Amino acid sequence: MVPSGGPTEETINLLAALVQEGDTLIDGGNSMYKDSVRRAQALKEKGIALLDAGTSGGIWGLEIGYCLMVGGEEAVFQQVEPIFKTLAPENGYAHVGVSGAGHFVKMVHNGIEYALLQGYAEGFEIMNAKEAFNLDLQKIAHLWNQGSVIRSWLLELAEDAFKKDPHLSSVRGYVEDSGEGRWTVAEAIENDVPAPVITLSLLERFRSRQEESFGAKVIAALRNEFGGHGVKKK
Amino acid sequence: MVPSGGPTEETINLLAALVQEGDTLIDGGNSMYKDSVRRAQALKEKGIALLDAGTSGGIWGLEIGYCLMVGGEEAVFQQVEPIFKTLAPENGYAHVGVSGAGHFVKMVHNGIEYALLQGYAEGFEIMNAKEAFNLDLQKIAHLWNQGSVIRSWLLELAEDAFKKDPHLSSVRGYVEDSGEGRWTVAEAIENDVPAPVITLSLLERFRSRQEESFGAKVIAALRNEFGGHGVKKK
Amino acid sequence: MVPSGGPTEETINLLAALVQEGDTLIDGGNSMYKDSVRRAQALKEKGIALLDAGTSGGIWGLEIGYCLMVGGEEAVFQQVEPIFKTLAPENGYAHVGVSGAGHFVKMVHNGIEYALLQGYAEGFEIMNAKEAFNLDLQKIAHLWNQGSVIRSWLLELAEDAFKKDPHLSSVRGYVEDSGEGRWTVAEAIENDVPAPVITLSLLERFRSRQEESFGAKVIAALRNEFGGHGVKKK
Amino acid sequence: MVPSGGPTEETINLLAALVQEGDTLIDGGNSMYKDSVRRAQALKEKGIALLDAGTSGGIWGLEIGYCLMVGGEEAVFQQVEPIFKTLAPENGYAHVGVSGAGHFVKMVHNGIEYALLQGYAEGFEIMNAKEAFNLDLQKIAHLWNQGSVIRSWLLELAEDAFKKDPHLSSVRGYVEDSGEGRWTVAEAIENDVPAPVITLSLLERFRSRQEESFGAKVIAALRNEFGGHGVKKK
Repeated sequence: MVPSGGPTEETINLLAALVQEGDTLIDGGNSMYKDSVRRAQALKEKGIALLDAGTSGGIWGLEIGYCLMVGGEEAVFQQVEPIFKTLAPENGYAHVGVSGAGHFVKMVHNGIEYALLQGYAEGFEIMNAKEAFNLDLQKIAHLWNQGSVIRSWLLELAEDAFKKDPHLSSVRGYVEDSGEGRWTVAEAIENDVPAPVITLSLLERFRSRQEESFGAKVIAALRNEFGGHGVKKK
Repeated sequence: MVPSGGPTEETINLLAALVQEGDTLIDGGNSMYKDSVRRAQALKEKGIALLDAGTSGGIWGLEIGYCLMVGGEEAVFQQVEPIFKTLAPENGYAHVGVSGAGHFVKMVHNGIEYALLQGYAEGFEIMNAKEAFNLDLQKIAHLWNQGSVIRSWLLELAEDAFKKDPHLSSVRGYVEDSGEGRWTVAEAIENDVPAPVITLSLLERFRSRQEESFGAKVIAALRNEFGGHGVKKK
Repeated sequence: MVPSGGPTEETINLLAALVQEGDTLIDGGNSMYKDSVRRAQALKEKGIALLDAGTSGGIWGLEIGYCLMVGGEEAVFQQVEPIFKTLAPENGYAHVGVSGAGHFVKMVHNGIEYALLQGYAEGFEIMNAKEAFNLDLQKIAHLWNQGSVIRSWLLELAEDAFKKDPHLSSVRGYVEDSGEGRWTVAEAIENDVPAPVITLSLLERFRSRQEESFGAKVIAALRNEFGGHGVKKK
Repeated sequence: MVPSGGPTEETINLLAALVQEGDTLIDGGNSMYKDSVRRAQALKEKGIALLDAGTSGGIWGLEIGYCLMVGGEEAVFQQVEPIFKTLAPENGYAHVGVSGAGHFVKMVHNGIEYALLQGYAEGFEIMNAKEAFNLDLQKIAHLWNQGSVIRSWLLELAEDAFKKDPHLSSVRGYVEDSGEGRWTVAEAIENDVPAPVITLSLLERFRSRQEESFGAKVIAALRNEFGGHGVKKK
């Protein structure tokens, strides 16, 4: 299970030189699904099979097993199925389609993850801003996980996070992104699919990493130009 | 447990005339939290207590119990706690704050629900549009629920929905909204909280109910004016 | 021409006590159009006419005249038309409908203004971020105003702003809002009209006024919980 | 002036074979700016100069001249400047930077155009939905162009469009996109610039071309699963 991009390419090339015709490689990292399609095709010409196994579960997978979404030839999948069975929780792996499909499904999984995180985040922010009610966010996260419509594993983690730091005062509001959100957005656009919420969730991450928005400076300057609205000077 | 708005107002007024000083009313419906604050205040002047109990769980609550978020005086809450204990799943009820807090927390819960639904919906649409992979959405929903980061109760329901109708061909893409999403958006705006994803999830529902967008007609007409781009004529 | 809200209400009440049956009041401020409908109705009962005159043009109106959008009875409008003719540029005033219509049209005007400002702002930010091209934003704003599809008065002001401060280094990216954007969004939602771009333009202003997003803190904390992704500590 | 993509590549290759060292090619089409950077580099090795001239003004350019944004070596630009002077309105052309900068600036221009169009479109839709006021959209577009803050050339075209068809009843709400909006969004994402309004304006075009949203079907199905909310059946 290796990271995406250059290192994956190198590792696969390296392994391809070591293995024999009839062998199978499994890429359990976050590769771009089009790369997996291309690599599978190239390896197939050498008689080597490639399975693309999207993997989810985070650091908790070590304990409960990883959810595995596998693409590639079904017969090859069946050959190595015991490996997936060992790594995954019960029923937690499946063959989802031809080469590339595994990483494609994992990519969309991550796009959805961006949206879910943003949705919960906005809800907690709205509650946090309601000072008059002085709400206990950990208590609410815990409560919602007992039978409410929005119960989920991410909400269980929110409960843990608020338990450790009720107002998240030690955490900076700075959110990285690791690429799969961008791919999901690009894929949606490529296919003319409007995915506004997944897309905006990505853009909000960019915004979180800006000290200040240049666009906002432009608007402040223009409002001053037309309306004489004061700008905050540096 | 009554619907919001006029009928709730009438029912509470009716009950207020029947009960005695020292009695407690419980509003387990989807009232606007500001109404609950106002009603609790008015009833208190008559010596009557009002608890606002936000309720989640949908039609499944009948089986597993309802998640209950209760606002009002803590002492009053404790008096009637056995009722909530009976209706809720284990630990599935809590006193979350003063009058109004229960319905406020339920309102935000629904706002989050809009965003989660929209996030999953976009992900499934992206997969559905990828015809080359011919993905089995039920299988994927099921798989993701086995240990993936985005597992949730809503995703379990998605599994059920795709089981009944793999391509949702019998369902129209027409989505109602019942008010709490609007309240969440209004609340966010009132407090200067940007909640773009919850907000857009509401707007997408409006869009789903339009046969055609007038705004899109404007753009089509303008593109024709400046660029000679053909418009599709009726 | 008076500001919106309480002071307008007071001023109109004050004037209503001073004027006589058959007189006409003109509210040239940014009143909420529903207030104008209500006030016109109340004044009418006393035989006093109210015209609601939405006014645009900013501080430049003093020089070139104000664009005036007038609501109220047409006969009353005609009586006082010379006033509007004097204040407005040529053809720059019109009777747009019954009471409230003037302020309604002005409200929507401002909603559009939010979107236009945000659109230009994003474009300039994209250019500003392209360091390799080292683009001269003033030059480009000027150029675009010579026959391009996006030429506009706001873009002329952008030219002025970049002339004074090429990188806007003296301006903070902090954008106020004066209420009409909120009203436009509320109006759209009330009528089930999806107006995503006007709405987001408002939310971006809120975001510009946050030092840090609480929602982003939530996401950073959750990513740490599930993926062990490092958070930036305070 | 040729269309983007394959035909441009072919045309440039064809011309490159015909011209001589020291000659200059001008690409006045909507090429992707990265292609222009690449082509300029390749041609330079043969001693041929390439200027990338972004062109705006639509079909009206024939009458008033085209706004031209030119990238490439300044000395080369100066050599052929008379051509641009002839084609453009007064001051309506400029050298904006090195190779690629011309098409880059044009690309961003188009991204802004998407946002402006969407902003006006939403405003007109909000007015159109306000049936009680029965507003005359042509009259309002005309009025706003007389001194209001949002006056622009696009708004003049809106006036023309509403003059021809007051309710746009002959136009379908179906909006094409020609690629530059996608490039602008991709560019913004590549540079971690949040451009939510330009991005959403693109996605709204996709949505305008869907008869029905699959995502909306998913939400309708899920609401039925958890809440028993009726779905509209086909």
